[in-house]
Amino acid sequence: MESAGSSMQVAFETSPDRYRHWKLTFDGPVATLSMDVQEDAGLSSEYRLKLNSYDLGVDIELADAVQRIRFEHPEVHTVIITSLKERIFCAGANIFMLRGSSHAWKVNFCKYTNETRLAIEDASEHSGIKFLAAINGICAGGGYELALACDEILLVDDGNSAVSLPETPLLGVLPGTGGLTRVVDKRKVRRDLADVFGTVAEGVKGRRAVEWRLVDAVYPTSQFKDRVARRAKELAALSDRPSAGPGITLSALNPTVTVDAVQYSAVRLEFDRNKRLATLTVNGPEQEEPSTPEEILQAGERYWFVRAFRELEDALLRLRVDEPLIGTVVVKTCGDASRVLNADAALIAHQDHWLVREVIHFVKRTLKRMDLTSRSFFALIEPDSCFAGTLFELALAADRSYMLDDPQHPVSLTLSAMNGGPLKMSNGLTRLETRFLGQPDHVRDLLDEGKPFDPQEALDAGLVSFAPDELDWDDEVRLAVEGRAALSPDALTGMEANLRFAGPETMETKIFGRLTAWQNWIFQRPNAVGATGALTAYGSQSRPEFDFNRT
Amino acid sequence: MESAGSSMQVAFETSPDRYRHWKLTFDGPVATLSMDVQEDAGLSSEYRLKLNSYDLGVDIELADAVQRIRFEHPEVHTVIITSLKERIFCAGANIFMLRGSSHAWKVNFCKYTNETRLAIEDASEHSGIKFLAAINGICAGGGYELALACDEILLVDDGNSAVSLPETPLLGVLPGTGGLTRVVDKRKVRRDLADVFGTVAEGVKGRRAVEWRLVDAVYPTSQFKDRVARRAKELAALSDRPSAGPGITLSALNPTVTVDAVQYSAVRLEFDRNKRLATLTVNGPEQEEPSTPEEILQAGERYWFVRAFRELEDALLRLRVDEPLIGTVVVKTCGDASRVLNADAALIAHQDHWLVREVIHFVKRTLKRMDLTSRSFFALIEPDSCFAGTLFELALAADRSYMLDDPQHPVSLTLSAMNGGPLKMSNGLTRLETRFLGQPDHVRDLLDEGKPFDPQEALDAGLVSFAPDELDWDDEVRLAVEGRAALSPDALTGMEANLRFAGPETMETKIFGRLTAWQNWIFQRPNAVGATGALTAYGSQSRPEFDFNRT
Repeated sequence: MESAGSSMQVAFETSPDRYRHWKLTFDGPVATLSMDVQEDAGLSSEYRLKLNSYDLGVDIELADAVQRIRFEHPEVHTVIITSLKERIFCAGANIFMLRGSSHAWKVNFCKYTNETRLAIEDASEHSGIKFLAAINGICAGGGYELALACDEILLVDDGNSAVSLPETPLLGVLPGTGGLTRVVDKRKVRRDLADVFGTVAEGVKGRRAVEWRLVDAVYPTSQFKDRVARRAKELAALSDRPSAGPGITLSALNPTVTVDAVQYSAVRLEFDRNKRLATLTVNGPEQEEPSTPEEILQAGERYWFVRAFRELEDALLRLRVDEPLIGTVVVKTCGDASRVLNADAALIAHQDHWLVREVIHFVKRTLKRMDLTSRSFFALIEPDSCFAGTLFELALAADRSYMLDDPQHPVSLTLSAMNGGPLKMSNGLTRLETRFLGQPDHVRDLLDEGKPFDPQEALDAGLVSFAPDELDWDDEVRLAVEGRAALSPDALTGMEANLRFAGPETMETKIFGRLTAWQNWIFQRPNAVGATGALTAYGSQSRPEFDFNRT
Repeated sequence: MESAGSSMQVAFETSPDRYRHWKLTFDGPVATLSMDVQEDAGLSSEYRLKLNSYDLGVDIELADAVQRIRFEHPEVHTVIITSLKERIFCAGANIFMLRGSSHAWKVNFCKYTNETRLAIEDASEHSGIKFLAAINGICAGGGYELALACDEILLVDDGNSAVSLPETPLLGVLPGTGGLTRVVDKRKVRRDLADVFGTVAEGVKGRRAVEWRLVDAVYPTSQFKDRVARRAKELAALSDRPSAGPGITLSALNPTVTVDAVQYSAVRLEFDRNKRLATLTVNGPEQEEPSTPEEILQAGERYWFVRAFRELEDALLRLRVDEPLIGTVVVKTCGDASRVLNADAALIAHQDHWLVREVIHFVKRTLKRMDLTSRSFFALIEPDSCFAGTLFELALAADRSYMLDDPQHPVSLTLSAMNGGPLKMSNGLTRLETRFLGQPDHVRDLLDEGKPFDPQEALDAGLVSFAPDELDWDDEVRLAVEGRAALSPDALTGMEANLRFAGPETMETKIFGRLTAWQNWIFQRPNAVGATGALTAYGSQSRPEFDFNRT
């Protein structure tokens, strides 16, 4: 039962011409993303994706579509999410896939699908793209969780179509892709009604679904399409996006993959598997980057920010799924800090331009993926590095940072306005604010500094963890890395999940902290995954048998 | 390895004359709680409580001492927490106890110890009692977590005494009694330093402990006692508590315990074990309760609020630990609503009086224990019930509520000012605010209503989940209870932990949501509790062997 995904290599890149499960169509300001999952095109042949159920491959296409709408289609102001299947919107995550997956695969699958749904909400909040779930059939579990990520939910009132979260009653697990959190926190369904809804396998339909705030409106079949189209246009009219393109095209990254490394144009991920260690190097711009929106548009996917952070994102996703034994990642940068700072300045100067805005929020989302990657990150700030502005966020995202203090080989780091607001973490604070929780004056002083920090200044300012001199550097870094490798990987995952998110919690951190952590607990429990557990028993002849001790 | 606590009956009541592990002494406004754990007086004889390590029994005494200081000793303004052992402050939770405990015992142990530490912080925030940790020796793990719950931490600088969180490096688990959360969220230790601190078994001492904000000050041995005494007096001077008693004495509850019930004076907890069902009944006041602080003082522990909520607390704790197979609790009240409302009015009128304040916050803490009890609660609002004001909080704390709508047997519920602020949940909101998240006007209207709600009004106002009539009542309640009993107890625990805490998160909810949930996950992992896991290997000859796959 641990077959699927144990050592499966997954391609996180795709494009609309290769979609198997979604159709993306355009009609002026309204795009429609139609789910039409191909049963026999799952990532594994061990399950069939019936009834628009999904696996990671289906979600990768969804994430790709949302990303492309943002970058390639500025004229799109509303996205309708619906189904092409008769009487089925989406049955949720494929249960046979879940049942056959290792614990780690389940965890990574849920993390990715959560990130996809949060990216939808990010597009709504920051990019002027509204999402409308047009539920034209049965909508269960992860199907409803996808709808919950949309701004509005319209449900057909055909006497049959219902929304439901049947995970607890049918599978003994949670609606862990944000379901429980969004029901009470986003849609503000009353907690007692949410309790009923979360325990009734058949779900809720019709007027009651509206009264309980589970959906925004229901319409009879005869009116449904018109109502959806009308509402999509109304939402589109609210957008501040351009009325026409062009956008920029995102083509394949085509890294060079060898046994020990994945080499992209600006990013390199290298493995030292004996030490369970990876080195992640991000190169700064090789040249001066464009400074106006027009130049950025023209540079398109070659624009350093787009290129480097698409590559970084792909590297992080590969690391999560393909390299489970890598425990520690050494983070380096290489390049000219002044070019990073100039590029940052262009982003800040033009942050209201739709494309610049997309770039900033994409950089932000990619850094969040790093925060949520359960590996230890140690940043090494060495000669020839360019930890400046946006790239200094890599050091701030790391669990620790080491800066070489060698007068013969001077190193510095510099902050920019990009460290002061645009790249907020999922807790709603910048990484500097989180690092210096409760010291807003210190954060302001650092941002006002305007000049590079040498190692001693960086250490005094609290911007790096340690600044060993050239005599101590090798030993200190080596001991830190070796020490980390000796610790329990599970305890490290739990420790990092707590220490990385000081300060306030948001719906997003509640999903990754509270909900995900409980789900991961349940994913270990015999009542879910044991021989007679509910997830194991589902779809078989046998009924689950529970150990009824409450914990 | 699942022996300790599997079916152990635990007495949650104690008193200073029976303490085995703590000495509570008084010197004017300063009380000193000195830890002096008796090695051979653990709850089980299977481990020895060496080096001031603790088990649940030790923590029950600590919780009792803090509670008694609040109620019995209004003249106490500062509490020093220190150790009577040579060169040892506290070694934390006893590892052999943890190693030998069932999963459920570990979870309940951590929940109780977390509640105790939060009660210390509650006394500091709301009762004018400051806590000063005087760390006069090695302070590891749960020992440091206890210090973290104090307002200030003073550490002796003797070249030996250090504070540490060695759980991750030594045991492969988390500092789960608030440690990780308080380090970054309360003490605002920088996350990278917290990362180092959390992975270095020997901890941090001396100046560095101050620089890293792990402690507030260090003093040489020669000065330590004086400095502690001086600081205790300074903190005491800030208090708004009375300068002299009397307080009220809390004597033993003495419930009548039979096979199927625990019967107190105002509370009854009854078990229907075949159905895995308990009925929890709280009786309202049998007479008009005191209306002035003087009368309340005179009534002392016989005062209905003190009596009923002490009993409720004890019942909830017994339920958690002694009755793991009870899945659902039906919550009832019985009595005269007008007496509850009069009693509420007295609390509100005199909430600035030190004793009334203690009563209110104790009621609040007890209701929080209910929120954190991992059983399903269904409130039944029937004839002769008194779900009014404070007692209506029981229905609001329940996962669902059913109110009988039978004109022949009229039932009502009433709100009071006690529903409008004093009894906040751990998320910082009242239960009404949490129930109607984002609808502050509706909450205000309900609180202004001032008259009883009949079943239809209560249903329309959203104050109850369902209001079946007399024909449907029996079936509807029975089906709800039976349906609940069929579900996975783990999925219900996870679902309730998510649905009960809509809205903002606080340090308190972060401890119970994020930190506890991750710890519970780790408590299931072979890397901690498996045959070669770190917790299993600790103290044995063998070294842990990890599965190094990162999840």
